[in-house]
Amino acid sequence: RRLGDGVEAAMHCALVLAGLPDGVVIPGRDLAALYDLSESYLLKHLRALTAAGVTEATSGPRGGYRLARKAADVTMLDIVEAIDGPGPAFVCKEIRQCGPVASKDPCAFRKSCLIRVRMLQAEKLWRDSLRGQTLADLARDAAPMIDDTTKRALAAYVDAVKR
Amino acid sequence: RRLGDGVEAAMHCALVLAGLPDGVVIPGRDLAALYDLSESYLLKHLRALTAAGVTEATSGPRGGYRLARKAADVTMLDIVEAIDGPGPAFVCKEIRQCGPVASKDPCAFRKSCLIRVRMLQAEKLWRDSLRGQTLADLARDAAPMIDDTTKRALAAYVDAVKR
Ligand code: FES
Ligand code: FES
Repeated sequence: RRLGDGVEAAMHCALVLAGLPDGVVIPGRDLAALYDLSESYLLKHLRALTAAGVTEATSGPRGGYRLARKAADVTMLDIVEAIDGPGPAFVCKEIRQCGPVASKDPCAFRKSCLIRVRMLQAEKLWRDSLRGQTLADLARDAAPMIDDTTKRALAAYVDAVKR
Repeated sequence: RRLGDGVEAAMHCALVLAGLPDGVVIPGRDLAALYDLSESYLLKHLRALTAAGVTEATSGPRGGYRLARKAADVTMLDIVEAIDGPGPAFVCKEIRQCGPVASKDPCAFRKSCLIRVRMLQAEKLWRDSLRGQTLADLARDAAPMIDDTTKRALAAYVDAVKR
């Protein structure tokens, strides 16, 4: 039941991309180096973000990654689902329909199993919470938590690698 | 990020055990047969439930499983965590502390990373929701959803296999 560890990397990188000025990209390799990640590892996750429409890649020697839409339009759920897949975490194989006691009448199963309903209700709260937080929210709320030296070092790094 | 598929089996079996009169147990093999599950598969999950203090096993030829405490004292979260482990689903390896831009001053990381905070807040909602539903709640709310034929068939099955 662990989320892929790529979620952490994807969130942090997406937050860096959220801070880029318009028209600017960062090469995947420089984004990986920023967090000491292997390039192939991060590229896999950047491709997943791109497939999900969260990031986009420009090609060529001056190519790189940027957000595909405004930071205010990318939710944490978008990123989690890009990396980890969208479906529910709870797996229901309708076992209530199996075995000697189960009704032979399909109508008996028209209503969803209550266990399934409750499991999915809990997941919905998780999902709604992540859907309620955008990259713009994170950037705004994280800013006062990061010291000035780090902010300047990040700005200098981005300035040196941006295309 | 899928939960183990044993969660569904464990929930359904725990709900059957919740309906047993005091002093009665059901052998693991009969619980498995009730849902057409392989005995070794279900026994693995029943052992996990027992290790977590949700069920208990009596031994000997008349041995079997029962709840270790009242149905009103077993939450859905107890069962999920017994089968799937307790820790958080989100994996944070503190990547904010890695790479050329990260502060060398450990004090810079006294406050939790906001991404981590938001991910764990979302999980807390999921966990709280499952903690708010006991087996007694499920049994009460599911009862009107199950037809009388199925109820009678289940009662007859349990009556035939109980010890
Ligand atoms: S049938 Fe799948 S959870 Fe009940
Ligand atoms: S450092 Fe782990 S989520 Fe930010």
